[in-house]
Amino acid sequence: MTALAAGLDVGGTKALCVVVDATGAVLAEGEAPSPRDGSPSALEALGGLVAGVLANAGADTAGVTLGVGLAGMVADGRLVVSPHLPHLVGVDVEGTLARALGARVRGVNDADAALAAEWAWGSARGARDVAMVTLGTGIGGSFVLDGRPVAGRHGFAGEIGHMVVVPGGEPCVCGGRGCWERYVSGEALTRYARAALDEGRLDLGDLAGGPPTALGPALIASARAGAPGAAAVLDEFAHWLAVGLANLVVALDLERVVLGGGLGAEADLYVGTVLEDLGARLEGAEARGPLALGPAAYGARAGAVGAARLGGRP
Amino acid sequence: MTALAAGLDVGGTKALCVVVDATGAVLAEGEAPSPRDGSPSALEALGGLVAGVLANAGADTAGVTLGVGLAGMVADGRLVVSPHLPHLVGVDVEGTLARALGARVRGVNDADAALAAEWAWGSARGARDVAMVTLGTGIGGSFVLDGRPVAGRHGFAGEIGHMVVVPGGEPCVCGGRGCWERYVSGEALTRYARAALDEGRLDLGDLAGGPPTALGPALIASARAGAPGAAAVLDEFAHWLAVGLANLVVALDLERVVLGGGLGAEADLYVGTVLEDLGARLEGAEARGPLALGPAAYGARAGAVGAARLGGRP
Repeated sequence: MTALAAGLDVGGTKALCVVVDATGAVLAEGEAPSPRDGSPSALEALGGLVAGVLANAGADTAGVTLGVGLAGMVADGRLVVSPHLPHLVGVDVEGTLARALGARVRGVNDADAALAAEWAWGSARGARDVAMVTLGTGIGGSFVLDGRPVAGRHGFAGEIGHMVVVPGGEPCVCGGRGCWERYVSGEALTRYARAALDEGRLDLGDLAGGPPTALGPALIASARAGAPGAAAVLDEFAHWLAVGLANLVVALDLERVVLGGGLGAEADLYVGTVLEDLGARLEGAEARGPLALGPAAYGARAGAVGAARLGGRP
Repeated sequence: MTALAAGLDVGGTKALCVVVDATGAVLAEGEAPSPRDGSPSALEALGGLVAGVLANAGADTAGVTLGVGLAGMVADGRLVVSPHLPHLVGVDVEGTLARALGARVRGVNDADAALAAEWAWGSARGARDVAMVTLGTGIGGSFVLDGRPVAGRHGFAGEIGHMVVVPGGEPCVCGGRGCWERYVSGEALTRYARAALDEGRLDLGDLAGGPPTALGPALIASARAGAPGAAAVLDEFAHWLAVGLANLVVALDLERVVLGGGLGAEADLYVGTVLEDLGARLEGAEARGPLALGPAAYGARAGAVGAARLGGRP
């Protein structure tokens, strides 16, 4: 029998659970809304999601390992700082889920998890110097350098969304200003689309209606349909993505960057523009050779799959 | 008898040579102007400097190891990209000096060398997650993360002077714009001092005369004498230093940053301002604890001492 492991990726809006085997194959998956608070009942609802997905994979909950990917700074398995999941900061997600499921549970950073999946089984397989950059509500990051995952002093390495790219720029949920994620995230894309609509540079037709959160997906759909105004808005997004990626490449001499999260899965729409911009921008570009840049092989499931992988680790 | 090693740090204006023993003690040192071109005779003059310093230390040149620290991107012992030493790009410094001296010679990045010295014997001793940031003509960088020096894909990791902090900002010698070193370097300090003089915010008295390159040292002397206008100019420098350091700390979760180069040796003048600025700026500052920030124990000699250390390594 193959050893199975469960992974849970708790994002700002939804939680995704997968069960994987020892080769990284996804045997079952399911999703539910993210907990709205840190109460035991909200966490037990997550436990119910995990139990259901395990049952669908034909696995017992008792004795299984569960990794939980959390967006923010994680120490000793708990969120200690999290602009995007503030209600889970300090909450004992590990203990609550362990008791609810009878499983061994480990909390990890969501981007560390996504990189673990891609490094073991996906787009970063065999890479020596690689960054995971997750593009969603915010930006998450994780590095493998010289063939080893990087933890840092407290395990917080990779909080790249809060590198400042515009000193004194847009206010950020972290309390700072001009953070990279203010310019490269779902919210930023919505902002660029809104400005283009208002200035008449973009026509989304019927797609322009609905709530503000629908604007990003509408823009993506419009770009896939070949609308030139939409492509120009994505170029703006790509430009800001290139600014931060260039900083990571010069600082860390990366060979590869894997784009995760919901917007990472759309990378084919903008990755060409990013690479052009990078080529013009990088110190010593000619000596570095091309950067391998593309989406996660697991797409938006990378965090959950990697959480499953890390959950079983000592 | 103690094993001795020679180190040579080739900077933009001068070359410093040291001979160290196995405990990192400097037994002899000397300096000379940097080579103005990459000709064999210019390099042989460097060889003469090394031979003289070795003789002063009572050591033979034959069979000694010599490390040569070079400012720029170094691959296989040679500079491949160097905005500050363009005439040495592609030049076989190793081979020429090896033949001239009968020594084993190894070319390394100057900031990697400085960190090697500080990590073994100086301010970074025992640190697990530490960056060297050399502040001189430009900014050099090098990292130890999770207890291991970081090389990156080609050994170019640490080119942090060319992280962009102001997109579209000041033109840089690398061909880009808005690079960190345009805002935190000797040239930047001179620019800030010049603007303050022109706007009447600074009075350097007799010190204001002389060539533009004398303005930075005059400002430092004036700040040491307690002139308030000079302190304000250093605050501007400190602010920009904090911008880039914050980016490194969030990305890499550093515990310590060692400031090298000529301006690093003046760190006591501005490090308090940098730490205040960092505390207000860092995502999750309260969970990170204080950053240890201070000058290299070897001061401006760290690069030469570390080159000696790395020169003897396989």
